[in-house]
Amino acid sequence: MEAPEKSEVGPGIDVVLVHPEIPHNSGCAGRLTAAMGARLHLVEPLGFSLEDRYLKRAGLDYWPLVDLSVHGSVEACFDELRGRSDRPFEERLRLFSARGGESLREVRFHPGDILVFGSESKGLPPELLEAHADRRVRIPIHEGVRSINLANAVAIAVFLATGEVSPDDLPAAH
Amino acid sequence: MEAPEKSEVGPGIDVVLVHPEIPHNSGCAGRLTAAMGARLHLVEPLGFSLEDRYLKRAGLDYWPLVDLSVHGSVEACFDELRGRSDRPFEERLRLFSARGGESLREVRFHPGDILVFGSESKGLPPELLEAHADRRVRIPIHEGVRSINLANAVAIAVFLATGEVSPDDLPAAH
Repeated sequence: MEAPEKSEVGPGIDVVLVHPEIPHNSGCAGRLTAAMGARLHLVEPLGFSLEDRYLKRAGLDYWPLVDLSVHGSVEACFDELRGRSDRPFEERLRLFSARGGESLREVRFHPGDILVFGSESKGLPPELLEAHADRRVRIPIHEGVRSINLANAVAIAVFLATGEVSPDDLPAAH
Repeated sequence: MEAPEKSEVGPGIDVVLVHPEIPHNSGCAGRLTAAMGARLHLVEPLGFSLEDRYLKRAGLDYWPLVDLSVHGSVEACFDELRGRSDRPFEERLRLFSARGGESLREVRFHPGDILVFGSESKGLPPELLEAHADRRVRIPIHEGVRSINLANAVAIAVFLATGEVSPDDLPAAH
């Protein structure tokens, strides 16, 4: 695990967007992860080009600061992330779903956690959610609203995760 | 103060966007406040029409669920909000600023709190920040990044504020 560079923004959080469709949201997620000190992974196919002007406009001048990786599949992404922590891989996963799982208000995050979000229109692939059903996290919202904007969900989760991760909050202590 | 309708999403939080410029961000804020059970106030001039298609697209089908008020000035907005709580008005204010204030990671929210955000390009008017300097809140971020997206900031703050506000968390107890 990498040493923290700043105490105020935590280390060791990876954010994975699986098949994101709207460039503005991925741009926002890039700006956000750069701001909070997390890494961003995009899993292809993407609904936009990495040269998209909306992607870069949403990321403003911060795009060069984004610690970004692009992967051809979820498996390829997970394979790369597997080696980044000694913790059991399954325990590091947090699969965000509008349909069920532990409330984000109850979740405790740890260094090495991997926050995985699905596409704007479809969410995460059902087979992925089924394979890791007890790692699902939902953001509690009023019944009339089905979901919140993807970039907003990423923002809330990354803020919480980076805030809870500190050198004193090592997995061995839990 | 209104009684809570749901225990999971808190009551009594007002969000004020002063002179917002980008319709997508206000649309996201609408969807978010509807989802979290907060009220949204837009202070004119706005950088868009309330009929803007980007505003409504960002709010998706949820726009009718948004508890929205539009005000001609900050003063008019504050005058309306003043009567909604018995708490001293000054103590309810949370003025978000990229330049200083209490860290959002330290803030405790209470029912009746008013979360005030400035425009995407300029932030809140300096005279407003100066008039309530000790009510400023900043979102701690890495030095290389000046700020995060407005809708993302709103999302994080509203999630925290609505989560901390419960019937057991009345101002009298503090």
